[in-house]
Amino acid sequence: MATWSPNPLLLLTIIVTIAVISSPPSVALQPSGLPLFKRAPRFLGKYSHPIPTQLRQGYKYETKYFYQRLDHFSFLDLPKFRQRYLINTDYWVGPDRLGPIFLYCGNEGDIEWFAVNTGFLWEIAPRFGAMVVFPEHRYYGESMPLGSRDEAYRNASTLSYLTAEQALADFTVLITDLKRNLSAVDCPVVLFGGSYGGMLAAWMRIKYPHVAIGALAASAPILQFEDIVPPETFYDIVSNDFKRESISCFNTIKESWNAIVMEGLKENGLAQLTETFRMCRELNSTVALIDWLESAYSYLAMVDYPYPSAFMMPLPGHPIREVCRRIDNSPDWASIPERIFEGVSVYYNYTGKVGCFELDDDPHGLDGWNWQACTEMVMPMSSNKDSSMFRTYDYNYSAFREECWKKFKVDPRPRWITMQFGGHDIKTVLENFGSNIIFSNGLLDPWSGGSVLQNISESLVALITEEGAHHIDLRPSTPDDPHWLLEQRATEIKLIEGWISEYRQQKMKVISNI
Amino acid sequence: MATWSPNPLLLLTIIVTIAVISSPPSVALQPSGLPLFKRAPRFLGKYSHPIPTQLRQGYKYETKYFYQRLDHFSFLDLPKFRQRYLINTDYWVGPDRLGPIFLYCGNEGDIEWFAVNTGFLWEIAPRFGAMVVFPEHRYYGESMPLGSRDEAYRNASTLSYLTAEQALADFTVLITDLKRNLSAVDCPVVLFGGSYGGMLAAWMRIKYPHVAIGALAASAPILQFEDIVPPETFYDIVSNDFKRESISCFNTIKESWNAIVMEGLKENGLAQLTETFRMCRELNSTVALIDWLESAYSYLAMVDYPYPSAFMMPLPGHPIREVCRRIDNSPDWASIPERIFEGVSVYYNYTGKVGCFELDDDPHGLDGWNWQACTEMVMPMSSNKDSSMFRTYDYNYSAFREECWKKFKVDPRPRWITMQFGGHDIKTVLENFGSNIIFSNGLLDPWSGGSVLQNISESLVALITEEGAHHIDLRPSTPDDPHWLLEQRATEIKLIEGWISEYRQQKMKVISNI
Repeated sequence: MATWSPNPLLLLTIIVTIAVISSPPSVALQPSGLPLFKRAPRFLGKYSHPIPTQLRQGYKYETKYFYQRLDHFSFLDLPKFRQRYLINTDYWVGPDRLGPIFLYCGNEGDIEWFAVNTGFLWEIAPRFGAMVVFPEHRYYGESMPLGSRDEAYRNASTLSYLTAEQALADFTVLITDLKRNLSAVDCPVVLFGGSYGGMLAAWMRIKYPHVAIGALAASAPILQFEDIVPPETFYDIVSNDFKRESISCFNTIKESWNAIVMEGLKENGLAQLTETFRMCRELNSTVALIDWLESAYSYLAMVDYPYPSAFMMPLPGHPIREVCRRIDNSPDWASIPERIFEGVSVYYNYTGKVGCFELDDDPHGLDGWNWQACTEMVMPMSSNKDSSMFRTYDYNYSAFREECWKKFKVDPRPRWITMQFGGHDIKTVLENFGSNIIFSNGLLDPWSGGSVLQNISESLVALITEEGAHHIDLRPSTPDDPHWLLEQRATEIKLIEGWISEYRQQKMKVISNI
Repeated sequence: MATWSPNPLLLLTIIVTIAVISSPPSVALQPSGLPLFKRAPRFLGKYSHPIPTQLRQGYKYETKYFYQRLDHFSFLDLPKFRQRYLINTDYWVGPDRLGPIFLYCGNEGDIEWFAVNTGFLWEIAPRFGAMVVFPEHRYYGESMPLGSRDEAYRNASTLSYLTAEQALADFTVLITDLKRNLSAVDCPVVLFGGSYGGMLAAWMRIKYPHVAIGALAASAPILQFEDIVPPETFYDIVSNDFKRESISCFNTIKESWNAIVMEGLKENGLAQLTETFRMCRELNSTVALIDWLESAYSYLAMVDYPYPSAFMMPLPGHPIREVCRRIDNSPDWASIPERIFEGVSVYYNYTGKVGCFELDDDPHGLDGWNWQACTEMVMPMSSNKDSSMFRTYDYNYSAFREECWKKFKVDPRPRWITMQFGGHDIKTVLENFGSNIIFSNGLLDPWSGGSVLQNISESLVALITEEGAHHIDLRPSTPDDPHWLLEQRATEIKLIEGWISEYRQQKMKVISNI
């Protein structure tokens, strides 16, 4: 087991660059100049600074590679690709004692970034005597098919194997091979994942119950498809997160869209907005600015943690409270755009080190999550006139579809995820067909609205925290952890212990029957 | 609903041509001239005569078509293909009464042949008020991708989408669309299938529990993979079926292999064997003859029904008893090959109308099941020196692999099925993750050895009949049905009724909660 030492070259390679949601200029526009529809927010925001050395030093793992089939579900003779995975066996009690294997379902980014942001798994591994494995999701990080990112992302054909089903098959093939090589075929596998990774963990437990004995699916919006939950859910939750801190803050934001659009229509208005928002480049419309602001609010709701954190951006504890404090406490003479700028600076510039701001408006947008959103991960989103502080948007599937065609030459399959994994009427379906999944959610997290929030059965459990945000339970513990978070994690540990001990008892029974 | 009328043109098109297992001349040979390994027997034998008109007249259905994606698991832009399905809604009580949908999982052949050989489903549909749907399996019958059988079977690339996973996705997409179009989204789907179709039914219930509420998986050897059951199981059961009728019969067959090989080595020996076995063409080795005989015994064991039947061949009731009677009662002066000929004539010529026999030795063997056996459906088979009446064979994977490469330029994936569907330690896995599957088996059926023969839980039930053969429960009822068969079917009906009524209660609870 190689101990991690902060190698500057490696540090450079693990820089994660995940773009902020933004409407690229190519997006279909309404006559007003605003986008025709509201795209689903991403799970992860821009993260363009390397993992801090002190954060990384807490984690020890080996980096290994495994050759995977590009298509598990056909017998086409395609080139294999190298999947990266991180592994630590320091705490593992080994096969004789049926030592568990903790498998994190890698999501849409560099796996090292997820590894160092999933402290919970590392912290509990020793008490479980567990091996820790973090496989990277295909088409992300170093796990690129076809030799390079450029080749893998060349077109719809090369991207066509970037799907959740293929990723789950990757995890299954990897862990089956790994167990065989370690003579650990009988060792129980427990799945972990947050956000899209949490969806993968839940789906993997459902689709591959013979591979893993249970799953902790944190902030996994597996119901955010088709018409299972109302499309306005996400933005309503974001809006409520602001409203609960301050109604005047909520109202200022709600009024700001019109104020910004009006300002932009004035002579020199765009120049004025460019100055107000300290943009590095002159704005040529208000569309991208509005998107930049909307992104900030959505991400703030996701990471509205009760203590300072740097998950996506360095932020104070209760960051929405701080945003609203700044908006509300701006001097009386401040215009609405000026107030808004003060507020979002909490998100984009809490350290105060950013001199000017760049809008992300990648005209190609050919990143992995955009592809996934344009194929399987079709999550309808709208913004309600009354309950949302965002601009009003209806869900417009045909505009969305058109944009996907323009961007990737691909047709989305909006009904496929529920055909493959279910979702409709999930209680009835899983009540007597399924076990050992924890759906954990913090209700401040806008993704909680598309997650499982009610117990389905004794072993399909919903753990909810009123004050939690996006998979806070998976984060490393801090001295500032509130009591409800300590309790939530203790319950998770107890449930996982239950799965493992039940499994061991069953195994012993089988062995003693032989 | 169109009533069936025996259209001679249509009759012609539905001729099913499924080849008998046989070692094509290209198979790897031992120094003795015998094949290096024992290929897994097929589920279905040669069936080259049309469905008899009187059999067909009992079944009414419409024939329809549905456009399916060639690859459900990638976003490659491939041409869609037309899947055929048969449908009958005459008895269906409709969506308001949550009328059930009986879905037969089409297996490796023409779907009309399965429809008219699955009388049980048709007979019970009226009492359930059920709709009946028989979708055809891709790459079989009329459901050919790429425009024609020739194109679909051209090479490993064109065949690469012939997999069980794709077939299950076809069924899922079809039934989801059908239910939506009939405003029957809430109607419960019950799966049926026999043999490979039974495997598909069980796997579909396991992988798509949100699509179907239960499955009757008849004679489904889902454990006939890797090392889950001993490889000699199949031929041991066939052998026991003969032994139970007559030990001398078993011994004659066991001795016959050597006798035939010895005869073939004599001068004019092959000419003599050609005459003894009334072959249409002169034999040029004993390999194909031995294979022809082995096939007959395997199929006889599968269709060792207690009443006359014509499932694969027209046969008397208890056909093995009749084979053994003829072998044992041959005149004393008859040679072993002559006795054997008398015996297998029961299988190949019970009607007495066949003048001479053709060995099937298609040198290409490019049929669908051969492809499936060479890719996913890798079922290890051997023949044990002591317990089997067949020649002794070890399981030789590398010879098998080599043959697949020669034939299709494809590499088998012998571990894939269990990665995808499980199988190892199935009791522990499914005990608390699964429900509503009936595994029905007759113990005379050699495939029963690879099936689930023990109850897994209260709702994962193994129904066994000592005297049953290959999915006899799915066959049309006859006046000669023995009491154990009547009882088995009654239990199946009761279990299915239980699934449906439980489902309806859950639905009512959900509706009354709204």
